[in-house]
Amino acid sequence: MTQVSSPPGDARFFQRAAPATLEMLAEIGNARIEPARKPVSGVDRYVGVAPLQAAGAADVSFLDNRRYAAVLEASSAGAVIVAPAFVDKVPEGCAALVTSTPYLAWARIAAYFHPATGAQAGRHPTAVIDPTAEIDATAEIGAYACVGRGARIGARSIIGPHAVVGDGVSIGAHCRIGAHVTLSHALLGDRVTLFPGARIGQEGFGFAVGPDGFETVPQLGRVILEDGVEIGANSTIDRGSAQDTVIGAGSRLDNLVQIGHNARLGRCCIVVSQAGISGSTELGDFVTIAAQAGLIGHIKIGAKARIGAQCGVMSDVEAGSDVIGSPAMPFREFFRNVAVLRKLAKKDAGGGR
Amino acid sequence: MTQVSSPPGDARFFQRAAPATLEMLAEIGNARIEPARKPVSGVDRYVGVAPLQAAGAADVSFLDNRRYAAVLEASSAGAVIVAPAFVDKVPEGCAALVTSTPYLAWARIAAYFHPATGAQAGRHPTAVIDPTAEIDATAEIGAYACVGRGARIGARSIIGPHAVVGDGVSIGAHCRIGAHVTLSHALLGDRVTLFPGARIGQEGFGFAVGPDGFETVPQLGRVILEDGVEIGANSTIDRGSAQDTVIGAGSRLDNLVQIGHNARLGRCCIVVSQAGISGSTELGDFVTIAAQAGLIGHIKIGAKARIGAQCGVMSDVEAGSDVIGSPAMPFREFFRNVAVLRKLAKKDAGGGR
Amino acid sequence: MTQVSSPPGDARFFQRAAPATLEMLAEIGNARIEPARKPVSGVDRYVGVAPLQAAGAADVSFLDNRRYAAVLEASSAGAVIVAPAFVDKVPEGCAALVTSTPYLAWARIAAYFHPATGAQAGRHPTAVIDPTAEIDATAEIGAYACVGRGARIGARSIIGPHAVVGDGVSIGAHCRIGAHVTLSHALLGDRVTLFPGARIGQEGFGFAVGPDGFETVPQLGRVILEDGVEIGANSTIDRGSAQDTVIGAGSRLDNLVQIGHNARLGRCCIVVSQAGISGSTELGDFVTIAAQAGLIGHIKIGAKARIGAQCGVMSDVEAGSDVIGSPAMPFREFFRNVAVLRKLAKKDAGGGR
Repeated sequence: MTQVSSPPGDARFFQRAAPATLEMLAEIGNARIEPARKPVSGVDRYVGVAPLQAAGAADVSFLDNRRYAAVLEASSAGAVIVAPAFVDKVPEGCAALVTSTPYLAWARIAAYFHPATGAQAGRHPTAVIDPTAEIDATAEIGAYACVGRGARIGARSIIGPHAVVGDGVSIGAHCRIGAHVTLSHALLGDRVTLFPGARIGQEGFGFAVGPDGFETVPQLGRVILEDGVEIGANSTIDRGSAQDTVIGAGSRLDNLVQIGHNARLGRCCIVVSQAGISGSTELGDFVTIAAQAGLIGHIKIGAKARIGAQCGVMSDVEAGSDVIGSPAMPFREFFRNVAVLRKLAKKDAGGGR
Repeated sequence: MTQVSSPPGDARFFQRAAPATLEMLAEIGNARIEPARKPVSGVDRYVGVAPLQAAGAADVSFLDNRRYAAVLEASSAGAVIVAPAFVDKVPEGCAALVTSTPYLAWARIAAYFHPATGAQAGRHPTAVIDPTAEIDATAEIGAYACVGRGARIGARSIIGPHAVVGDGVSIGAHCRIGAHVTLSHALLGDRVTLFPGARIGQEGFGFAVGPDGFETVPQLGRVILEDGVEIGANSTIDRGSAQDTVIGAGSRLDNLVQIGHNARLGRCCIVVSQAGISGSTELGDFVTIAAQAGLIGHIKIGAKARIGAQCGVMSDVEAGSDVIGSPAMPFREFFRNVAVLRKLAKKDAGGGR
Repeated sequence: MTQVSSPPGDARFFQRAAPATLEMLAEIGNARIEPARKPVSGVDRYVGVAPLQAAGAADVSFLDNRRYAAVLEASSAGAVIVAPAFVDKVPEGCAALVTSTPYLAWARIAAYFHPATGAQAGRHPTAVIDPTAEIDATAEIGAYACVGRGARIGARSIIGPHAVVGDGVSIGAHCRIGAHVTLSHALLGDRVTLFPGARIGQEGFGFAVGPDGFETVPQLGRVILEDGVEIGANSTIDRGSAQDTVIGAGSRLDNLVQIGHNARLGRCCIVVSQAGISGSTELGDFVTIAAQAGLIGHIKIGAKARIGAQCGVMSDVEAGSDVIGSPAMPFREFFRNVAVLRKLAKKDAGGGR
């Protein structure tokens, strides 16, 4: 492929903070400066972050993955964030910021150089806002946003262009509601982020069989998004039928994820893109659901369980366990099955059909 | 998990009708009142519905699932809707509404207490409506909705905020078009419901290989949504290429469902979230497609067939059959295969590799 | 199913060009006229295209698939586009347009009869356009579209109603940006088409584990959509974290597709609906990913590889190879495994458990 890339932080799209000394960066990243690795002479300020293969003398880079160690050795970065084990791989003339959590330090240093845009207090003149809505004076309401009757929006929250905030919806402080988001029947804590096109609070998929076809079962619950929740682009979270649908504090859902009515996620769960959780299923804290996995309804997933990609979960999963396959089984069993079947198939072919 | 839930019908989000007597509810739910179960003294009106574990003396609850029978026995509900077999599980002081279809009765009684908001006749001043559009005077057109040239919208239909109704699109009576819906090249019957972000009528995925890359094949068909169809949030239905894409009357599609061009669904089909039906595939009536299942194109699924979750259907499926797995096979065969493979893998491990 | 369909090209939704002679169509479709097949007397102009079973004497149809040969023999079409091998199946009174690429000829002839609507130069009065945006005078900006600071829009491009074009976004010439699209942090070439609800350029799914939960890793890259790229309805493409996310020239993505941060697709790749490509994975040119397939991150897929429907790809795939299954394996191996397992399961059942 011949596409030309650019260093991170294209000025058309990102703000850039003032250059920083190594000492400032060490403090931001909670890292120590390795005395045996001096920066190249003449560099006393760093201007940004870049991947190892693209970084120059004024850039900070990082190494987190053992298999890129050779890339580090050949890097022209001016400074690099590394775990202690990789200090000796840092090339001459490259300063080393050493920490046991290099990815976290990278996150914080990158966020220093390219801070997210805060709320620009005020209401775009095209926004349609019900007079009974309570909107903090520091909040930002974008072009063509609609805010319904009795809705509440907290301090420093940003409502993106074209977002629709339904009647009675409550949004805490420091939330970021993306463009084209639809919100109804929902209560959001603080620091909740919804990416563009997320649909939160619509009717769940509930109907009874009547004499003339299906009849809708009223969906009378809500969606609760606790503090710090993030929901990816075009994901859908249905409101509860009689109870609430709840996403626990700090949980992060990727794009195109489906959450059925009455589902309850614990704290700090991760749900990767295109996964789906059916109605009334409950997840403990720190559960990870990999991409395209599906969980049937009315089951319980214990804390810290990990559900593999494309997994089809049809029954409860114990806390701390790792499952994959469809139907779900322990990782070890799944890969053993794959190996055995391959062996049997080879034998069968060899035996001459 | 420690989240606090609330009883259904939060007044910020739902209307609430006047309290009702047991006799009124029996009529609404087409149930009989069990004479052996008297309501607790002093209660002669019910104010709402609630799940068994949350219901109080003025609430109506229901039991549909055998495994919650113990919850019924401990419930404080004032009245409960039950099948005849569970009448003797209804606790003292709780009235019993008895019917062979308790879930349907629940749906109707819940809908009595919390009626859906009807159309508020009129056009929001921000709506952009082509002068040639024919809109019934009783229809509601929301903020920032766009209605194209020659479009038609029937009586009591609701067009949500930010919905885009394309040129020539026809919408029947009593339809509910959600916020942010895009509609083009489509004809809708009566009582059609589209949830937020549904995309109906865009070009299907059709192209030919030309000398300089792919060339688009014009997609010249339409989307037909028959009476009573419901389409979930962020689902996508492409218009036909030369024929129409058709969703049969009463069918219900969940969120994030994909329907390819020229697909034809019969009446009262169910397609659960994240399932996909490829182009030109045909479903008979009352077919059920579970979550994340995928059907290739140009196949036929017989009436009342049931396709399991994550199933990969590569060939025709007979009417009335149940299939699962990828590739699809009868349920019985799938689970037999799973069991045999497990057995073989254990034996292999035991035999010492 | 009893739904009534209509011939393609419903006048409510499609323009129709003037009738054309057989000679004109042969030129448009780069086909030769078979002298042994004369059109029925009296027809010297064709008015449109239609499928074989619906076409009349003034319609052009086509045959591409051997299994519809019998339909051709019974067709009333006035002319048909066929490969040389099928000329003798063309019925009496039906002219034959013969070409080795009948589907491509159909695409071009259909596009002649029903040309796509071009840009109507100008800005809808409701569009909110930043004064620093550079918009070509021939571009069309739809109702309620938002165009951000420093954004650029090229000649004859169409920005659909309600589309949001973020700050700094660059859109080339002859692009079609659908209704309700969200674009940010993105650079588009020429002739790029985005279908309704596509989300391009939002933050990728990146976070580090901090002492108080997850911390966002700033996503500082962009999305590059090269010339001729098409992205389906409600698909999501995250911007890069440190590098760019790149979709190579001429690639076509279907609806509800997910592309993770830093993924790079080569030229003319095809990604069918509901498939997902995880972060940092690279595809060569002409790769095909079938529906609902999933690729983990950080792998490489060689040019012209074909990934089957629902495939779960966990490691690199060689150029030109065909894989399917979860985990992915060669097609031949997958179907052999399916057959062997069926055989073993039958034997096991027969052997009496």
